[in-house]
Amino acid sequence: MKWAISRRAQQLTSSAIREILKVTERPEVISFAGGLPSPASFPVAAMEAAVARVFADNPQAALQYASTEGYLPLREFVAKRYNVGVERVLITTGSQQALDLIAKVMIDPGSPVLVETPSYLGALQAFSLFEPEFVSVPTDERGLLPDALTRELTHGARFLYALPNFQNPTGRRLPLERRQALIARAKELDLLIVEDDPYGELSYTGDQLPTLLSMNPDGVIYMGSFSKILAPGLRLGFVIAPPELHFKLCQAKQASDLHTPSFTQRLAYESVRDGLLERHIPTIRDLYGKQCEVMLDALTRHMPAGVTWNRPEGGMFIWVELPEGLDSMKILEEAVRRNVAYVPGAPFYAGAPRKNTLRLAFVTVPPERIEQGVTILGELFREAIAQASPQPRAA
Amino acid sequence: MKWAISRRAQQLTSSAIREILKVTERPEVISFAGGLPSPASFPVAAMEAAVARVFADNPQAALQYASTEGYLPLREFVAKRYNVGVERVLITTGSQQALDLIAKVMIDPGSPVLVETPSYLGALQAFSLFEPEFVSVPTDERGLLPDALTRELTHGARFLYALPNFQNPTGRRLPLERRQALIARAKELDLLIVEDDPYGELSYTGDQLPTLLSMNPDGVIYMGSFSKILAPGLRLGFVIAPPELHFKLCQAKQASDLHTPSFTQRLAYESVRDGLLERHIPTIRDLYGKQCEVMLDALTRHMPAGVTWNRPEGGMFIWVELPEGLDSMKILEEAVRRNVAYVPGAPFYAGAPRKNTLRLAFVTVPPERIEQGVTILGELFREAIAQASPQPRAA
Repeated sequence: MKWAISRRAQQLTSSAIREILKVTERPEVISFAGGLPSPASFPVAAMEAAVARVFADNPQAALQYASTEGYLPLREFVAKRYNVGVERVLITTGSQQALDLIAKVMIDPGSPVLVETPSYLGALQAFSLFEPEFVSVPTDERGLLPDALTRELTHGARFLYALPNFQNPTGRRLPLERRQALIARAKELDLLIVEDDPYGELSYTGDQLPTLLSMNPDGVIYMGSFSKILAPGLRLGFVIAPPELHFKLCQAKQASDLHTPSFTQRLAYESVRDGLLERHIPTIRDLYGKQCEVMLDALTRHMPAGVTWNRPEGGMFIWVELPEGLDSMKILEEAVRRNVAYVPGAPFYAGAPRKNTLRLAFVTVPPERIEQGVTILGELFREAIAQASPQPRAA
Repeated sequence: MKWAISRRAQQLTSSAIREILKVTERPEVISFAGGLPSPASFPVAAMEAAVARVFADNPQAALQYASTEGYLPLREFVAKRYNVGVERVLITTGSQQALDLIAKVMIDPGSPVLVETPSYLGALQAFSLFEPEFVSVPTDERGLLPDALTRELTHGARFLYALPNFQNPTGRRLPLERRQALIARAKELDLLIVEDDPYGELSYTGDQLPTLLSMNPDGVIYMGSFSKILAPGLRLGFVIAPPELHFKLCQAKQASDLHTPSFTQRLAYESVRDGLLERHIPTIRDLYGKQCEVMLDALTRHMPAGVTWNRPEGGMFIWVELPEGLDSMKILEEAVRRNVAYVPGAPFYAGAPRKNTLRLAFVTVPPERIEQGVTILGELFREAIAQASPQPRAA
């Protein structure tokens, strides 16, 4: 039997990277590839106590259908935390679902959508299913360049997708002045911003810059997540949007999964209602900051000249640049043979990729394994540089 | 600020019915409108014990990211139950998500999609976002008519969406001979069938007819759900598909919500692994069968001549037809004023609606309230018939 599938489904092809990275599940592989938070950071005891309260309070409500917008106390918790009206808050099945809903509501085939260079792969995938035309916004090592948002570049754009805090994949944080300039520019251009902020509270020193949402609540759709501050296996995110867009997002969500599980929403609310996050987030910051230091230190000692990287102020990722001309995708195969994995940078680019880039995740790997893995990568990159140098330039 | 939203989002309009039915949350309203399973049927104690096991076994895995396909033991449980290879099983965030994923993978704007007359409203909504051209398949009181599936009617159809068991909204079950004829016809026409089966195990006598899946595993995408046999608040469904479609559905799911919550999947698996469903489903059948009898009995005693309804063999719904010319949508406003609610039939039709139809749900309403509500509806319909009779025919 032969069926016709949709044009968007035909575009979905098996990822070469995913095939290579499948082997990283072998225990002998030191993987800097995963984007997983450290399970050591999950507040298991608090959540076990919370689930007992869910069963004690009203188990039948936790097991029944519920409203599309989400569990009201959890929505109120989010609204208070972000100082917005609860009528703007929609609970989503992870913030990946928020990407899907935003795409459903905002993107027609061929609609221009502005993205950072590079940007979050999961967003590019979610948006791609709705066939936008991606427009790459130039960036430097501190994030996107507000001045690059000209009338020409942004013409007809449905929105700008921005990750101002410890961006996945680069770990970059957008400085305050740029946030201010970006908001001013967006207002001038009548440009909607989609702010994706799963890592905003994971600054290692605890300092936080204002969200774009707080600077212009009526011009920003804000996406947040409990994945990095509580537990990703609950698949709980939220989207804060101006009322008319909130309403459309709710309609799209109803068609997509009716509502996010009542049970996980109540579990999360019972976990966080008494100030757990205030006690818990500092321990995550501390853990991730230390892990980051270990990796930065190892990079300094083991990377050959010509390899550069940034020094993140928070989050889970370091962005590495190899000398121009090297291809991190090709090198990955040999890295995996030597039992170390990372994610090549190319797939994070909507437009022409910088093939000499790669992403390192450090939060789940024990310090001695970080040291060992970076040592191996240092040797490998040194060999790759040596091999590349004497050869004539590729056509 | 004014934004451009997608064409599909513009089509999403506020439902008049939903506005009317909002008042049904008032406790004085006797609502036959909801499609909710009875909370009395939730196995709370078994699930509380199950959640304790989830925390005892491997809480960190239950709280971490997981594979898109779903929790392997739960997939194996489903595969065994349906006698299919586990590689065909994808766990979804409720079976509503399966509708969204199938639409993503199968529907282009303008693609013909065959639906029963009437069909499940949630499916029409999910598919609509992908802008198909709905083609209505004729039915009678026993379900769809396989002979109506001519080469002309089915030309270019991406699939036929069928609900063979106790269909929402009509409660109809497709007889065995029609299932056989349907499968034979679909094979001839190379027509893919999407079989939506949330109520299949809720036959009041416990007898089950073979699924379309079992009759042609390579020509059917099967959607199942834990909502009606365990608890809907977990939002757990599954889709069984031929391998190449399974793969595409997984890719679409990854972009939609990465994966269904690890926590709810493990909770469900720990709940059902020891045969809970075999003990529990008969109690639901029994409860729903008794509730159905109460409503059928009340209808017989209170409905005026000219009103007809079916006698379901399972599930949660009765389909009522008023005399030709009456509009159940208009009557609903007065019904709600008298504190009784139902769902008008019109929105369940992809094409021209039969406005004189309506759906009654009976599983959550106590018997004395069923009696009371049906009494009120009987009076109301009698009045409406009397009012309609002497008047000249509407233009």
